[in-house]
Amino acid sequence: MYIMEQRTEIAELGEFGLIEHLTKNFETHNASTVMGVGDDAAVLDHFGKQTVVTTDLLIEGIHFDLMYTPLKHLGYKAVMVNLSDVYAMNATPTQITMSIAISNRFSLEALDEFYEGVFIACEKHGVDLVGGDTSSSNKGFIISVTAIGEANADKIVKRSTAAKGDLICVTGDLGGAFLGLTLMEREKKIYLENPQLQPDLENEDYIVGRLLKPEARKDMIEFFEKNDILPSAMMDVSDGISSEVLHLCRQSNLGCVIYEEKIPVSEASRKAAYKFGLDPTVCALNGGEDYELIFTLKQEDHDKITLNEEISVIGYMTDITDGCKLLTKGGNRFDITAQGWNAFQK
Amino acid sequence: MYIMEQRTEIAELGEFGLIEHLTKNFETHNASTVMGVGDDAAVLDHFGKQTVVTTDLLIEGIHFDLMYTPLKHLGYKAVMVNLSDVYAMNATPTQITMSIAISNRFSLEALDEFYEGVFIACEKHGVDLVGGDTSSSNKGFIISVTAIGEANADKIVKRSTAAKGDLICVTGDLGGAFLGLTLMEREKKIYLENPQLQPDLENEDYIVGRLLKPEARKDMIEFFEKNDILPSAMMDVSDGISSEVLHLCRQSNLGCVIYEEKIPVSEASRKAAYKFGLDPTVCALNGGEDYELIFTLKQEDHDKITLNEEISVIGYMTDITDGCKLLTKGGNRFDITAQGWNAFQK
Repeated sequence: MYIMEQRTEIAELGEFGLIEHLTKNFETHNASTVMGVGDDAAVLDHFGKQTVVTTDLLIEGIHFDLMYTPLKHLGYKAVMVNLSDVYAMNATPTQITMSIAISNRFSLEALDEFYEGVFIACEKHGVDLVGGDTSSSNKGFIISVTAIGEANADKIVKRSTAAKGDLICVTGDLGGAFLGLTLMEREKKIYLENPQLQPDLENEDYIVGRLLKPEARKDMIEFFEKNDILPSAMMDVSDGISSEVLHLCRQSNLGCVIYEEKIPVSEASRKAAYKFGLDPTVCALNGGEDYELIFTLKQEDHDKITLNEEISVIGYMTDITDGCKLLTKGGNRFDITAQGWNAFQK
Repeated sequence: MYIMEQRTEIAELGEFGLIEHLTKNFETHNASTVMGVGDDAAVLDHFGKQTVVTTDLLIEGIHFDLMYTPLKHLGYKAVMVNLSDVYAMNATPTQITMSIAISNRFSLEALDEFYEGVFIACEKHGVDLVGGDTSSSNKGFIISVTAIGEANADKIVKRSTAAKGDLICVTGDLGGAFLGLTLMEREKKIYLENPQLQPDLENEDYIVGRLLKPEARKDMIEFFEKNDILPSAMMDVSDGISSEVLHLCRQSNLGCVIYEEKIPVSEASRKAAYKFGLDPTVCALNGGEDYELIFTLKQEDHDKITLNEEISVIGYMTDITDGCKLLTKGGNRFDITAQGWNAFQK
């Protein structure tokens, strides 16, 4: 939480003044963006390429907590989670629309912070902001983002096309965002009980960064392109890999084996997990919001990824009758169940 | 308000079960829909056509009141207001994404009602539901819709391309939705003060229908196509024509003259206005949510529209130095000011 030095009421600008104000620094980068903000709809041209579309609705108190989420990070993350879905199709994001609803507790300066994060995310990924909607809410901050991307038809990777024997791979490391959330929730609780105490983030930059500033894996899509790799199936890791791997199995009509010892967990996450009395593997399997990619790969392509330290092979696809299994370090075999984030069971 | 006979808790299905349940009746119609719901993103193919994208965020208590809005109508309207923006580009809507967030006061049966309205709207306009997101909210119903459409590049009509001397035309009639809202708000107030009293809608079907079941003007886009008409500028009427005509003038760098006597108001709306002690012209100018089209047309095209009773010529574009003027029935000349709905000044 921080203090705003200046406070301009949103009502002073009116809706259209506000949209102009918020979008004035956004320039378009993509040849496919024929027209952006300022008409009934944006106009895109995707001559000969396929378009992918994905959308997310983020609600204060459900998907984020402004008590420990700086608005700039929130803007950045709101874009990033949608770009992650586009990359998960092996496509390149080209445009987003951003709609927000806010109560009058937010000033123009607060909104500017939010849009600064949106701007940085768009710039970093070469994405054009082409539309949106701003309105008021009775309570809380509501964000809706739609991302559009493009790819050649033969490059798009679905969830449903894995084959038996394919390797299961994940990028980066897992569980960090969940551990960052655990830390922030702990500090929030302490602060609410005793506002005099300063937050103790104990050099936990890594897990806090994983929570507040996730990075969609554009680099991986570029690596695939450069090395002539086409995953057989792919999705992004937003709910935790136990949930995601079950999606891949169900949609591809297969089973799988995952090796616990192969699941990538960073040293920082492992330490944090032990400090909080949590099992690092459980955090990696069931913690959400890592925004890594999970994909399957034909075995003959294994050589193409071995030198990339950002990719871990964690298992392989099996027959549907073999079920979805986790092989633990101790040699036990468990059924994988989705413990991922379920918005309706809070 | 009505009573649900059955109540299934949303949590019983889980998020993915819920999405499957809600979208199971939706089939895809458009050749451009390569893949719909069920992956990280939908896949569209717009070979050689331009794509238009528009999005809207609708929030309970701000944009709609569930006390007098049946959920089925709400679903229908949520789609319709977005399709209206696509038609306002002279484009054909092809896909939508629909994201919703709901609190646990809504049952599955309530959501089914909502999606039934979404389904009917999609079927009627040949639009495919290709994605979305469902999550929970702490309070209230939140809806985010993104609509995608396509058009040949030379057929897309912007707001900024009107020319001096062009005729200003509107479709249908205006002010009805605002009068419907006025009636419903009055009835709500009476009900809250005395719940024993039954609502008295006094044969006001027309204005109530204008509010609860707006119809995006697909027929007009088809009429333009059939009669080789290309408006010089166009937008949809969501905030009231005084606001919309100012947008057209500002974005085209022009002024305008509007004739009060030419503004189309239905007999039902006129009667309702008098009953509520309101000026029908003010309702037509400043009332929102009619979802008609306002467009400009070269004078030489006038003959092409004269036989269409759904189109009224209400004025013409002038030089920017002449300002934006309303010529009243009494012969007075007023500056047009935007009194349209401003979400931030409630």
